[in-house]
Amino acid sequence: MPESLAIGIDVGGQSAKCGVVTRSGVILRQCVISSMQPTLDGFMSSLGDAVKMLCTQTAHEGTVIGIGADAPNANYYKGTIESAPNLKWARDSQGRPAVIPFSELLSERTGLKVTLTNDANAAALGERTYGVARGMDNFIMITLGTGVGSGIVTDGRLVYGSDGFAGELGHVCVERDGRQCNCGLKGCLETYASATGVARSARQMLQDDPRPSLLRNLAPETITSKDVFDAAAGGDSLSKDIFTYTGRILGHAFADFVKFSAPEAIILFGGLTKSRQFFHDEMVREMNANLMDIWKGKVQVLYSSLKESDAAILGASSLVW
Amino acid sequence: MPESLAIGIDVGGQSAKCGVVTRSGVILRQCVISSMQPTLDGFMSSLGDAVKMLCTQTAHEGTVIGIGADAPNANYYKGTIESAPNLKWARDSQGRPAVIPFSELLSERTGLKVTLTNDANAAALGERTYGVARGMDNFIMITLGTGVGSGIVTDGRLVYGSDGFAGELGHVCVERDGRQCNCGLKGCLETYASATGVARSARQMLQDDPRPSLLRNLAPETITSKDVFDAAAGGDSLSKDIFTYTGRILGHAFADFVKFSAPEAIILFGGLTKSRQFFHDEMVREMNANLMDIWKGKVQVLYSSLKESDAAILGASSLVW
Repeated sequence: MPESLAIGIDVGGQSAKCGVVTRSGVILRQCVISSMQPTLDGFMSSLGDAVKMLCTQTAHEGTVIGIGADAPNANYYKGTIESAPNLKWARDSQGRPAVIPFSELLSERTGLKVTLTNDANAAALGERTYGVARGMDNFIMITLGTGVGSGIVTDGRLVYGSDGFAGELGHVCVERDGRQCNCGLKGCLETYASATGVARSARQMLQDDPRPSLLRNLAPETITSKDVFDAAAGGDSLSKDIFTYTGRILGHAFADFVKFSAPEAIILFGGLTKSRQFFHDEMVREMNANLMDIWKGKVQVLYSSLKESDAAILGASSLVW
Repeated sequence: MPESLAIGIDVGGQSAKCGVVTRSGVILRQCVISSMQPTLDGFMSSLGDAVKMLCTQTAHEGTVIGIGADAPNANYYKGTIESAPNLKWARDSQGRPAVIPFSELLSERTGLKVTLTNDANAAALGERTYGVARGMDNFIMITLGTGVGSGIVTDGRLVYGSDGFAGELGHVCVERDGRQCNCGLKGCLETYASATGVARSARQMLQDDPRPSLLRNLAPETITSKDVFDAAAGGDSLSKDIFTYTGRILGHAFADFVKFSAPEAIILFGGLTKSRQFFHDEMVREMNANLMDIWKGKVQVLYSSLKESDAAILGASSLVW
């Protein structure tokens, strides 16, 4: 019997990465198409062609049995992408973000069953299928990128909630009337503990703190989390404090997450984790300081074990199994 | 075929309520035994006898197929009660709260399978089986009593987490470095939004607010949430403001709960809900003010439809089905 294969597709604002994956997590072939196309039909046509090409290229190695995809604002229950502002082709005729029946459209073009979820949920599944969460039935995946996303697994299953949108932990309030978030609310976790949040913290601390800092050589509005990392790595004490502050906010939020679903681990993924050496200890300390005795010291904080370039495809493909 | 019946047992610090319940939620017989007994053997013996008596009394109406019980600090996975400070018989030989293999002990005495959980989880199951959550697969039960408890249902199942202790939403932090909680942490939701929390708010506002108030006729340390209710019902503006403040804290916390599990409803139960007329509107307003557009106005806040005296037995019994 030929091996069963899955296609994983990671749809982002710039590009869509597609790959054919074996049950054991080997990516046999992959390709990237642009996600900057202006029309829905154009994008779906390119994506359908990419899928068909991948199926043909791997036909001698196995049979593709389905497609797993992740995309911003994905609705798992409906297979739709709903009002995703960063996807140019996901708009109505007036140019406003619209509801796109992604799974249905891609299924029509490829003849394959399509399962859709958001990127943090896909990352959680990928980690459970191929990564550091193998064998874990209760964990929370937190993606620390431009924003903060989350995928929550309880009793071996992703939490989707009544509408498919559960797990928006990047938008829990960590500071009443705090920083303005893109979502319209104030004080959301992601305004502090994402790459952009770290940059905001840097600008704020440079204003509020008189210490000299390597960051003062940069125009404040251009500072990125990478700049803060480089300065911290160069011994800059203010930059180290920015990460300590970030770790404290993350740890405090994680303690409340634990009270919700009692995970055995919180697993971190995304660009900001490259700076973990500067925030990990404070994050874990603050989490434990805010946990009751039943959990103190018992919840692991781990980092994704998947190669970042592969994780998106692997995560999406794991929806198929 | 005789009808299948379930026994529900609600174990509290003062008493244990036991009842025989039909599949449709009728309590056929019930009894109460004291929970103030000094020894484990004495308590389990009384409880075993009560169960046997109930089985005998209802033998002509059906067959008892199992026991569902709720108790403080219950571990669902292990069937144990772990370090419950308010249960006199749940201690070791030095008088310290101990781990009690409750389900095993009761099963030995009765020959019936025993399933154990905490009271808020039992309330959630009871509401789903017999109450206002019938047909709901995603909701959060919040018990507003002396403390604040919670039972979280996602995809039709209770969230127990890795250790059986998930759903401690009474201890999420609503105020950094806020009020001291019995759990050892500071600023927990239950220090503000429980019956005792309302009494604490009253004492604080009487100090901080110069307005006249009916509550000033009482010794501050004796004030209960019932006093605040009575004063508010009598038109006392400071007392009304205490409930408004309570509602705001609840609503703000609920918004973060929604971001976790996207429930279709949050269902409230417990003594404090008798004062709902004074906090409901502010609670719902504050929740919606802190939700993203995808949820604004979409999450219902409901109240238990079960008679309070029956709810505990019904909730526990529903573990059996």
